[in-house]
Amino acid sequence: MPYIHIQITDENVSTEQKKQLIAGATDLMVKVLNKKPEKTFVLIEEVSLDNWGIGYHSVRELRQLES
Amino acid sequence: MPYIHIQITDENVSTEQKKQLIAGATDLMVKVLNKKPEKTFVLIEEVSLDNWGIGYHSVRELRQLES
Amino acid sequence: MPYIHIQITDENVSTEQKKQLIAGATDLMVKVLNKKPEKTFVLIEEVSLDNWGIGYHSVRELRQLES
Amino acid sequence: MPYIHIQITDENVSTEQKKQLIAGATDLMVKVLNKKPEKTFVLIEEVSLDNWGIGYHSVRELRQLES
Amino acid sequence: MPYIHIQITDENVSTEQKKQLIAGATDLMVKVLNKKPEKTFVLIEEVSLDNWGIGYHSVRELRQLES
Amino acid sequence: MPYIHIQITDENVSTEQKKQLIAGATDLMVKVLNKKPEKTFVLIEEVSLDNWGIGYHSVRELRQLES
Repeated sequence: MPYIHIQITDENVSTEQKKQLIAGATDLMVKVLNKKPEKTFVLIEEVSLDNWGIGYHSVRELRQLES
Repeated sequence: MPYIHIQITDENVSTEQKKQLIAGATDLMVKVLNKKPEKTFVLIEEVSLDNWGIGYHSVRELRQLES
Repeated sequence: MPYIHIQITDENVSTEQKKQLIAGATDLMVKVLNKKPEKTFVLIEEVSLDNWGIGYHSVRELRQLES
Repeated sequence: MPYIHIQITDENVSTEQKKQLIAGATDLMVKVLNKKPEKTFVLIEEVSLDNWGIGYHSVRELRQLES
Repeated sequence: MPYIHIQITDENVSTEQKKQLIAGATDLMVKVLNKKPEKTFVLIEEVSLDNWGIGYHSVRELRQLES
Repeated sequence: MPYIHIQITDENVSTEQKKQLIAGATDLMVKVLNKKPEKTFVLIEEVSLDNWGIGYHSVRELRQLES
């Protein structure tokens, strides 16, 4: 019955990586809490760099400062 | 004052169906909890098949296995 | 596969009402979107009146103004 | 450590306005709760007018009635 | 129409501070996006220190390391 | 920058298990997406059995049917 909501920045996450996130998060529930995989939801949400802020700035701004 | 967040897979849900989901969810709050419809939020979020996992696999993979 | 998250104020919602919310929300997904009930999650979250705000005030404050 | 999730209707919110929302929400946590800005997440989610309902109707419908 | 969900660690946040968070978050929506306060929801969720993790550890563990 | 929200039924999850969920979810982000652990939030939410529904019924009802 677990529901896992993963929010990450929208930076070209591949389909393969998404599969790994889904499998890994499901496996974590199975191993730690003995949950049923067929009743475990994993949702991945990709958030635009303009829409994610940390330390007063958007990630877009921070990436520009870094580069 | 209810807030209802509906997450569904992104599979061509029509505008008409969204209206039914909004009306139905609102009506549920009015009928069961006597809430005010004008203070009831319903949000529908459509999630890509690659971004929704169940039973170790993405829904995309499961749909391919089914077809 | 739907996931429905219902947030309501914590005002003595009975177990029976919760059953009705779960059944009603599930039925809405089945009827409007033809979803499978055994793969439909409904989560109800009850939020303290001090922790829910609308129009600059907490619901606690608004309830006190109303009474 | 705060996490602030802001959901708003998808109505051409500018990048500048998003910066103000991120800075303002972060500042609120710093001033009221003395939180560390570098550990404060602010996420902005823009929701289609068809996907946001209030008072039995979608915001799209309400905007059409208003105009 | 904004919905703002604030998640913070459960560390004795006072009712007065909650009022300030509600008023401040609402004011941010009014000032930046010209939203109607009576249609702006602010929800505060207080999360146990054992249930919030950062950098591989729960906040409880981190607080113990700090003290 | 990832934010991972884990919702599970409130069934006596131990502090040790919570530590494993936090470490495991963080490690998944580090390994799959090369994210920084100190900027990865993991939040665990424990939901009452009366407040979680699947297949038209609350988990409480389902547990009673199973026993």
